[in-house]
Amino acid sequence: MKSSKSYVEENKERFIEELVELLKIPSISADSAYKEDVIKTADAVKKSLAAAGCDVTEICDTPGYPVVYGEKIIDKNLPTVLVYGHYDVQPPDPINLWDSPPFEPVIKKTEIHPEGAIFARGACDDKGQMYMHVKALEYMVKNNDLPCNVKFMIEGEEEVGSENLAWFIERNHDKLANDVILISDTGMIAKDVPSITTGLRGLSYVEVEVTGPNRDLHSGLYGGAVANPINVLTKMIASLHDENNHITIPGFYDKVEELSKEERAKMAEAPFSLENYKKALDLNDVYGEEGYTTNERNSIRPTLDVNGIWGGYTGEGAKTVIASKAYAKISMRLVPNQDWKEITELFKTHFENIAPSGVTVKVNPHHGGQGYVTPIDGIEYQAASEAYKEVFGKEPIPQRSGGSIPIVSLFEKELKSKTILMGFGLDTDAIHSPNEHFGIWNYLKGIETIPFFYKHFTNLKS
Amino acid sequence: MKSSKSYVEENKERFIEELVELLKIPSISADSAYKEDVIKTADAVKKSLAAAGCDVTEICDTPGYPVVYGEKIIDKNLPTVLVYGHYDVQPPDPINLWDSPPFEPVIKKTEIHPEGAIFARGACDDKGQMYMHVKALEYMVKNNDLPCNVKFMIEGEEEVGSENLAWFIERNHDKLANDVILISDTGMIAKDVPSITTGLRGLSYVEVEVTGPNRDLHSGLYGGAVANPINVLTKMIASLHDENNHITIPGFYDKVEELSKEERAKMAEAPFSLENYKKALDLNDVYGEEGYTTNERNSIRPTLDVNGIWGGYTGEGAKTVIASKAYAKISMRLVPNQDWKEITELFKTHFENIAPSGVTVKVNPHHGGQGYVTPIDGIEYQAASEAYKEVFGKEPIPQRSGGSIPIVSLFEKELKSKTILMGFGLDTDAIHSPNEHFGIWNYLKGIETIPFFYKHFTNLKS
Repeated sequence: MKSSKSYVEENKERFIEELVELLKIPSISADSAYKEDVIKTADAVKKSLAAAGCDVTEICDTPGYPVVYGEKIIDKNLPTVLVYGHYDVQPPDPINLWDSPPFEPVIKKTEIHPEGAIFARGACDDKGQMYMHVKALEYMVKNNDLPCNVKFMIEGEEEVGSENLAWFIERNHDKLANDVILISDTGMIAKDVPSITTGLRGLSYVEVEVTGPNRDLHSGLYGGAVANPINVLTKMIASLHDENNHITIPGFYDKVEELSKEERAKMAEAPFSLENYKKALDLNDVYGEEGYTTNERNSIRPTLDVNGIWGGYTGEGAKTVIASKAYAKISMRLVPNQDWKEITELFKTHFENIAPSGVTVKVNPHHGGQGYVTPIDGIEYQAASEAYKEVFGKEPIPQRSGGSIPIVSLFEKELKSKTILMGFGLDTDAIHSPNEHFGIWNYLKGIETIPFFYKHFTNLKS
Repeated sequence: MKSSKSYVEENKERFIEELVELLKIPSISADSAYKEDVIKTADAVKKSLAAAGCDVTEICDTPGYPVVYGEKIIDKNLPTVLVYGHYDVQPPDPINLWDSPPFEPVIKKTEIHPEGAIFARGACDDKGQMYMHVKALEYMVKNNDLPCNVKFMIEGEEEVGSENLAWFIERNHDKLANDVILISDTGMIAKDVPSITTGLRGLSYVEVEVTGPNRDLHSGLYGGAVANPINVLTKMIASLHDENNHITIPGFYDKVEELSKEERAKMAEAPFSLENYKKALDLNDVYGEEGYTTNERNSIRPTLDVNGIWGGYTGEGAKTVIASKAYAKISMRLVPNQDWKEITELFKTHFENIAPSGVTVKVNPHHGGQGYVTPIDGIEYQAASEAYKEVFGKEPIPQRSGGSIPIVSLFEKELKSKTILMGFGLDTDAIHSPNEHFGIWNYLKGIETIPFFYKHFTNLKS
């Protein structure tokens, strides 16, 4: 039987071409202007699943964008792997910072990717990583190496909070029944340091609006005499962190899981160079919560970041105006045990409370999700660990990610199965940023590694 | 000889039509996309001066937009009035808040303007008020009622800081030689309360840029571990005011003129209803510097307002990003004795000093100007006072304006003559705001009143 390694070697050109085609479709779920492209991408994914060997493929409608479903059931008595991924992508702006158009993929060599990387929005998050699973299935089917049943659930709303995936899952428990959920939508520590993401942060995303006077005013005639919504908004946002960068929202930390000295010490063993980290971002210093390391700040600690702010005159030149309204988009990353709905309420109450009497404040919750932790003593983790060992020749390192896949905790609640996160991207892949890319080496390694997870999970499960 | 009152009555329809035509040209000096329209407006003003009776009219080139010059010299031994105004306008955005297109003037009745008001950008600031002087000249020439010489200097860069007017004045001392400078670019307290603006605030306008990481980052992977330029900018701006809304920039208040109890008591006599003020702006409370009244806050006290702020994702939906850069436009209104260049330096130094080490900060000064005070015992003030008495039947009230005409202090320095500010607009005219308008009653009253200033100034000067 042909090894996944040699099959990938023989077919890599085609694997790359197929991904490039998929990346050309601008499936931006956040912007309704791209509705048709999102739908078109769902169709392309469905076709690819059928071509890879799924016996059943469907476009499943939801109140929002459809879920692409596929399955290959070889024996009802064998375990079933459910692959989750998403075919939508983040908005590409700021466009002007891209070296090449975000939806015209180009392959370029980089210091970290001497074998070349594919530059395009969605290359890594998540079209590239999702497509690894489609090609891994193709290998297993074509080479009679599929040891169990497989199902695919590829959604189109992950970048806008998976608003309708819960709706879909609640209505399809039987269809989605599985023994483990397999996801590649996270990263690995380094090309020579395989890692398994054992923790995800939760998320609460809100939009705030501060209204002062009922119309824009001349800053000379009214300046200093009425509350300026922008000045007020900056004061309100600034007050959300204290001088030690602790978040000041009452009750925010009440349920935060405090890790033991031992756990923190184990985390600290992961290879990390603060110098390289700062160098990669052109920073002369890092910044964050007092008393925690950089790796702790972006994984085991909750955060509050403004993702966007706007108000008043932002055009060319000068306009001496006091705006009637100012806005901000704010997201909070949460750690296990923090409930996103509860945190959203705490934020709303606090933000409305700190508004001075000269303005009115509106808080509009966008979306959110719970954090998640994968137990490292379960067979899912063991199977993934064995798979990495076979391909990378070394034990993977468990790591907490700062990112969020809000839907993961729901999977466990609704489908009663654990999720395993086998990510092949790198922190430097610039996901959500201009010039997002995915290393060809990583892409192919992922396709090579995934079949081993199926093998070991089936063995451990039997 | 026909009175200005009866001439205005006979010609008012035409006076309104002519102004409406001028308002149709979008002379937005801040936005280079409107360059041709700004030039076109200058030509229209030149033609109107010739038609009104100027013997000489010129388009005077500068490094920026041209100055329109006109003159009628009837006797070198008689005094000369120099009329200053501007033909450029503020940008109209936010466009969506206009009830009618900003450059398609419409006449509508309002509670304050039962005779109707012209709604258009520039209706009051300053095309409408500038054009009162053109029509007043027409009256005086047609009715042999021009008692002295007159010169016009109408610029096209007032809304962007009169960047090249100093350049023009320095090179044209003789051409611009005059005995008094007459300006209508301010307001009056109320239709039945004529007032003369005796003070203007100075201005310093800057743009700031805060840069964190060298690219936009995923807020999950980096959130909490690097300085978020937007969060940092809000902290920096918030820190510019203390809990009493005093400005915290070291040295900012050093040269601020402190008014005596008596002066403040006299100011307090001007008719003012805080209830109506709040009602007009839909505010449940005013907001400002501790220890000063609303009228003091916006006239005799310096202020710092953010006029615009932007950074990160401001589009539809949600994007979990940490922006690489955040920006703000900030203006400071200054009182007499504060030097705008010195204040700009103080701001720059302070703002750079308070930046945390995780970011870099750039401060780009836009423009500025000094404040100004007109002595109320000079003949300019007396002449204006007499003119109002003849038309309104009552003594005008001297008032300090919160606004700035940065160039006024330069006039005195360069041309050695005093400036008199006869404004006919109302605070409610929404200048610099959506739905800017100018009362037809005010427009015609201005045309009627101006010739009396010429008469009394000439008498007092002789």
